[in-house]
Amino acid sequence: MASESGKLWGGRFVGAVDPIMEKFNASIAYDRHLWEVDVQGSKAYSRGLEKAGLLTKAEMDQILHGLDKVAEEWAQGTFKLSPNDEDIHTANERRLKELIGETAGKLHTGRSRNDQVVTDLRLWMRQTCSTLSGLLWELIRTMVDRAEAERDVLFPGYTHLQRAQPIRWSHWILSGAIAGNPLGVDRELLQAELNFGAITLNSMDATSERDFVAEFLFWASLCMTHLSRMAEDLILYCTKEFSFVQLSDAYSTGSSLMPQKKNPDSLELIRSKAGRVFGRCAGLLMTLKGLPSTYNKDLQEDKEAVFEVSDTMSAVLQVATGVISTLQIHRENMGQALSPDMLATDLAYYLVRKGMPFRQAHEASGKAVFMAETKGVALNQLSLQELQTISPLFSGDVSCVWDYGHSVEQYGALGGTACSSVDWQIRQVRALLQAQQA
Amino acid sequence: MASESGKLWGGRFVGAVDPIMEKFNASIAYDRHLWEVDVQGSKAYSRGLEKAGLLTKAEMDQILHGLDKVAEEWAQGTFKLSPNDEDIHTANERRLKELIGETAGKLHTGRSRNDQVVTDLRLWMRQTCSTLSGLLWELIRTMVDRAEAERDVLFPGYTHLQRAQPIRWSHWILSGAIAGNPLGVDRELLQAELNFGAITLNSMDATSERDFVAEFLFWASLCMTHLSRMAEDLILYCTKEFSFVQLSDAYSTGSSLMPQKKNPDSLELIRSKAGRVFGRCAGLLMTLKGLPSTYNKDLQEDKEAVFEVSDTMSAVLQVATGVISTLQIHRENMGQALSPDMLATDLAYYLVRKGMPFRQAHEASGKAVFMAETKGVALNQLSLQELQTISPLFSGDVSCVWDYGHSVEQYGALGGTACSSVDWQIRQVRALLQAQQA
Amino acid sequence: MASESGKLWGGRFVGAVDPIMEKFNASIAYDRHLWEVDVQGSKAYSRGLEKAGLLTKAEMDQILHGLDKVAEEWAQGTFKLSPNDEDIHTANERRLKELIGETAGKLHTGRSRNDQVVTDLRLWMRQTCSTLSGLLWELIRTMVDRAEAERDVLFPGYTHLQRAQPIRWSHWILSGAIAGNPLGVDRELLQAELNFGAITLNSMDATSERDFVAEFLFWASLCMTHLSRMAEDLILYCTKEFSFVQLSDAYSTGSSLMPQKKNPDSLELIRSKAGRVFGRCAGLLMTLKGLPSTYNKDLQEDKEAVFEVSDTMSAVLQVATGVISTLQIHRENMGQALSPDMLATDLAYYLVRKGMPFRQAHEASGKAVFMAETKGVALNQLSLQELQTISPLFSGDVSCVWDYGHSVEQYGALGGTACSSVDWQIRQVRALLQAQQA
Amino acid sequence: MASESGKLWGGRFVGAVDPIMEKFNASIAYDRHLWEVDVQGSKAYSRGLEKAGLLTKAEMDQILHGLDKVAEEWAQGTFKLSPNDEDIHTANERRLKELIGETAGKLHTGRSRNDQVVTDLRLWMRQTCSTLSGLLWELIRTMVDRAEAERDVLFPGYTHLQRAQPIRWSHWILSGAIAGNPLGVDRELLQAELNFGAITLNSMDATSERDFVAEFLFWASLCMTHLSRMAEDLILYCTKEFSFVQLSDAYSTGSSLMPQKKNPDSLELIRSKAGRVFGRCAGLLMTLKGLPSTYNKDLQEDKEAVFEVSDTMSAVLQVATGVISTLQIHRENMGQALSPDMLATDLAYYLVRKGMPFRQAHEASGKAVFMAETKGVALNQLSLQELQTISPLFSGDVSCVWDYGHSVEQYGALGGTACSSVDWQIRQVRALLQAQQA
Repeated sequence: MASESGKLWGGRFVGAVDPIMEKFNASIAYDRHLWEVDVQGSKAYSRGLEKAGLLTKAEMDQILHGLDKVAEEWAQGTFKLSPNDEDIHTANERRLKELIGETAGKLHTGRSRNDQVVTDLRLWMRQTCSTLSGLLWELIRTMVDRAEAERDVLFPGYTHLQRAQPIRWSHWILSGAIAGNPLGVDRELLQAELNFGAITLNSMDATSERDFVAEFLFWASLCMTHLSRMAEDLILYCTKEFSFVQLSDAYSTGSSLMPQKKNPDSLELIRSKAGRVFGRCAGLLMTLKGLPSTYNKDLQEDKEAVFEVSDTMSAVLQVATGVISTLQIHRENMGQALSPDMLATDLAYYLVRKGMPFRQAHEASGKAVFMAETKGVALNQLSLQELQTISPLFSGDVSCVWDYGHSVEQYGALGGTACSSVDWQIRQVRALLQAQQA
Repeated sequence: MASESGKLWGGRFVGAVDPIMEKFNASIAYDRHLWEVDVQGSKAYSRGLEKAGLLTKAEMDQILHGLDKVAEEWAQGTFKLSPNDEDIHTANERRLKELIGETAGKLHTGRSRNDQVVTDLRLWMRQTCSTLSGLLWELIRTMVDRAEAERDVLFPGYTHLQRAQPIRWSHWILSGAIAGNPLGVDRELLQAELNFGAITLNSMDATSERDFVAEFLFWASLCMTHLSRMAEDLILYCTKEFSFVQLSDAYSTGSSLMPQKKNPDSLELIRSKAGRVFGRCAGLLMTLKGLPSTYNKDLQEDKEAVFEVSDTMSAVLQVATGVISTLQIHRENMGQALSPDMLATDLAYYLVRKGMPFRQAHEASGKAVFMAETKGVALNQLSLQELQTISPLFSGDVSCVWDYGHSVEQYGALGGTACSSVDWQIRQVRALLQAQQA
Repeated sequence: MASESGKLWGGRFVGAVDPIMEKFNASIAYDRHLWEVDVQGSKAYSRGLEKAGLLTKAEMDQILHGLDKVAEEWAQGTFKLSPNDEDIHTANERRLKELIGETAGKLHTGRSRNDQVVTDLRLWMRQTCSTLSGLLWELIRTMVDRAEAERDVLFPGYTHLQRAQPIRWSHWILSGAIAGNPLGVDRELLQAELNFGAITLNSMDATSERDFVAEFLFWASLCMTHLSRMAEDLILYCTKEFSFVQLSDAYSTGSSLMPQKKNPDSLELIRSKAGRVFGRCAGLLMTLKGLPSTYNKDLQEDKEAVFEVSDTMSAVLQVATGVISTLQIHRENMGQALSPDMLATDLAYYLVRKGMPFRQAHEASGKAVFMAETKGVALNQLSLQELQTISPLFSGDVSCVWDYGHSVEQYGALGGTACSSVDWQIRQVRALLQAQQA
Repeated sequence: MASESGKLWGGRFVGAVDPIMEKFNASIAYDRHLWEVDVQGSKAYSRGLEKAGLLTKAEMDQILHGLDKVAEEWAQGTFKLSPNDEDIHTANERRLKELIGETAGKLHTGRSRNDQVVTDLRLWMRQTCSTLSGLLWELIRTMVDRAEAERDVLFPGYTHLQRAQPIRWSHWILSGAIAGNPLGVDRELLQAELNFGAITLNSMDATSERDFVAEFLFWASLCMTHLSRMAEDLILYCTKEFSFVQLSDAYSTGSSLMPQKKNPDSLELIRSKAGRVFGRCAGLLMTLKGLPSTYNKDLQEDKEAVFEVSDTMSAVLQVATGVISTLQIHRENMGQALSPDMLATDLAYYLVRKGMPFRQAHEASGKAVFMAETKGVALNQLSLQELQTISPLFSGDVSCVWDYGHSVEQYGALGGTACSSVDWQIRQVRALLQAQQA
């Protein structure tokens, strides 16, 4: 077959391998994280070989013992990488051969590197999912504890960032805890997939698909989206204008220029990580798009993504737990932020209970809001006579409407902001926490 | 409160509402898709109001009857939108009032628009997930049928797009069917979430979170990633160079310039949609990032994303089913693409069975490959003497290695490419198909 | 060549073409937007053919006249699509043939459909970039007008959403106008690329690369990122807690449930579109990733992305202009939000001017802030004696520090918040506006 | 102001700062890359302070000398980080103070950390853009050299991966070089922005906008998209089925399992990096979306993205240069892949030159293709009589059509595949290369 002699056009290097390519190709810099699961997987595989008659009992014992030695060296920090160890699998096998000799060459009989890589990564993710799950439950537990202790604090609920109706502070806290909760379910799914109880149905698909990686990265992205929204709320509540909460010094930083500043850096960092984590998910899906089936080297991108996202999630969940557990709330400010116009919906319901259709009642209440604004008084300072110009259904008992505590207690439906409903939510989440520990 | 009179600086329009804003704000152009589920949801809600004593039996009947009339108008294409109908909810309630009068105003007592929007969307997605699931199973069924009928065809398996080992054509087909399969599981999850068997735990979270949308978009993205990879394989197999398969004319197009061309447009479009669908997923997550809790108008972005992705998935799954069911395979070309060097691994296993450690056997087989290349002959044309210069373990029975059919039959482990294993995979997938129909 | 007869496995349809594939493949539903530029491009090409001797003068005239007739039909809404018109190019050529007969068949001599598609899209984008650029400059002009008229209003500057230092309202407005400005430059680039002054250097690359599309989508994404941030600021300034600005009713909506609410829907929609637009950019890049060179049908994804993003940008820029031009500012609230602790940096500078190194002065000012907080007084209510316990450099002239107007006037460096600096910024932006009109 | 004592609910740690938060907050692990530009920026700033009268000449000299010492320690690897050095700026200032005492505290008078961060990053990016630009030009130079040397090799041009028309190998190479070229332009833009010739117009915008980062990341994403497509082509050309090129061993790897395999890992890695780089771009834009104006800690995400992408681009460009410079082409295989049906367009042009309208000629040529297929002969083996049954315009001179060299020479328009046109492209790219070096 005809071909020109290569490299007529210069070329940076002399010799068999371009050193930049070698570095570009090598994964040992990051896949050394896998040392433990690589040994674990190899031990299992050697047992399989013995069962299949491809290793004698003595050979298997020799390999198992050697692998334990390799693991010990990693654990004690004495494992020495050689320049030719391009990945953790090569490194461990090279060391095993130094320790036990030629028998090491039998270890990966009939097992491709791609098999080994994907098995190791699945094992590693089982561990990391378990750790992250623990941290997530810790965050949820902290939120529920807080929700229970501060059930009596009312403050404005917002939609569109406009004050809407009075709600319990615990109701807000729990909305975050519950947002965390379905994510826990997703993780269970992932663990189920990773417990190897089921075998993969097709060998081509097994080394080629990275659904378990993509799903992990998406779980993390969605989780971070929720946490970015919780962080946004708390950043707002920390402003001078809201002043509902105060971050612990442990989670704030000062300004290099302005001595009076105390910045919610922890929350801003949490918010920012939503971008980073999603970027990894987006990157992996783009890498996968249009790849031919089975293994292609492109798949090597999976590991750094998973390692970085795992580290990020671990830090974010711990910092979020710290922030929530040390946050101070300013009860007076929260109470003072409530205003009678937030009870306009209650005023409409008052008319509904007197028999008026809701759409008309909504309109009547809107007229009262407008009348109060026009007169420059608070909504609850309109006289009964004034209200009756809007609807004759108003009578003396309308005064009961102007009680914030009474207002929130109306919302006793499951999921609402009444004390009983908040208690029910707390019990639900506690039940989930207990189910986890079992 | 002081304020300047607005619009000192010109402004394009006169009057109370900027018409561009009106159009920017309105969602009726696309949320009319929701007419049926909006009526369905409102009927359920009116029954709830009657139970709670907020509607009389007669009022409820009047409303239910009116809503049925509204639905009938939509179904028959006689519903007339008025210029003030900014969304489907307003339109339906406006029409209901025209039909039954003031009682219509009681329908949404205590129910916010945001509630209504999110309920309608969940109902709609339950329908669409069920439809898409049906189309996905149809694709899988077609693949399994094909896998069963063409079990006897061998062709090269590739990794890195380099010929690796002989495999059954059915093994490739099933790797695609199985890639589709876990997606079905995800859909079940979504349906479980959408069956309203469980109520939402927290009212703030209920109108604010769009996990069910994000998860649907991610499911679609991951599904499209798989389909893009299957399409890539088939596009390659359609090239003159591979010539393994031929697309039906129904799924090809010609060139406006080059008379001899027949292009795999259907497959290229499938591959391209992975980008579009993922773009919608990315867009929604970016929209959600950092939003304050509860409802913000930003959430209105969810619907167009879901509608477009649902349409795209529906078309893609049907076209993919059509492509697979009408594809012709070129058996001779597939067979001719097999070459003895693809049995080099088998040659190594031959030595392993004679007692050589796998790493040494791999090296010995590599030497044989090199020797054959150097001599310019096929691997199976090396003489026994030549092979014995590499290892004395080679003997006359090495000739058994050079049989492709024998080679694939070695891979009888579950998930492998042996006939028995492929049959097992077919049975597994058929069992899933039957479980679906039950 | 051997092959099975296709469609052994059922198949939804009978006949030569799957109707779903036909619809999946056709682009006429959206590429009809291109009718005008398609005619424009074809007219130019027919002149080229005449010059090359491939059309006679008479044939060219016949074609030009026929194309004008086609354009007229489109403009008057009388062009009738036939079921076989899969795209705008086919439709126009089919109609031309009906109008002028066989000569129409000479129009695209030596020109592939891919050529035609990419030329049309470039022409269309030249128009749309020009329109969007006009809308962007209109927004900037509105902002500068406003900045000029309200130069005297001070309010808090924020970093980390914590009050930092007093700034002019105009300084904030201009920071938005300037963020818009570099985008204009980018657009010029794009126009330069699209003016066809330069020819494409390589024919393979010409039909295959979509850099001009990707760059347009990225420009739009970056522009929307800026606008999302401006919208976020204004949403905050609209809250009850900030109450710095009030949206015109033309850009607000009420609540279906809560009569007192007025929601900044226009701003929330602007913020949300950042996700949608970026999603299109992400989707296109994913579609392009890993495509073989030259034309592949995947490239058909470019057009819907460009059309949708163009529509979105057009609406967003107009609504943003309307919002800014009709916004009311609450001067008193802005003034009342200023507090002496925001002058802590000025207090440090006071000490710097007396000779203290900045880091020490920063620390001394921080001590003053702490002392004031501890005593429960405002920073400017500390007595001179108290200040002198922190540093002997404090003397009577420290009282000059506590003047907000004086504070902002210190920042006279170009780009600062002093009146002269703001005026300079206004002049700079006005100069850019004039340069545009020239 | 009322508040609860914090941390009633446990909390992992005791003391003032959560160590996880400290690590989460610190950027020193990656922003130490900025040591050189940080010193450079501080030296410039101290000169500014002296000019403004805020430093004496002696103080400035002391600071400049101290900063040189700091830089020297970094360069020699003797700089010792202290546990409190949260970022490079703090570290350098801390060390400066140790070296020169209190005067160090004057260095950042009136300069916020955010100023410093953004200036440093801009300086660093100026350097890195210059380096990457050099590597990009080196890649382009290699491609042009190769295009020039191998101008005489013909092989199939593809669209939709179907063989289309014969082209020169150099034409393909140049389509890649030219795809690289506009990117160079973009870089110039960026450099222009970073040369600080112009000052930022608005101080709020200056510390807040990250357009220069987003544009760099998008430039890299688009560049990687092009390189992913070039890699895809070469991966295909490396397959057994195409066998047009052979990768140097320096850029290939073997299989752990299959002795005969030689995998194009270098190209697959290049292709995969498109996902990673785009993911960083997507992540940054999501982080920016909806941020309040001015500085927020979220912006800290910019640096790791830029550092990682810069490293990736540097490796990719060097490996791509190595791959291209050492690639062997298989001339015979390329020639044998040409087939007469690829001249069907030429056959149509033959008829056009005899006066037939192009659309009819295209149809006539299509009939010839079909006739040849039906008869099972090559297109050029149809007899003149057979051709004349399709059109009487065919005559003896049709035999001239069947010459591949003649075919490519027809495409002499600028950008075409004729020798003269390819030479022109080479000259154009060489002119750009020379313009760069000047």
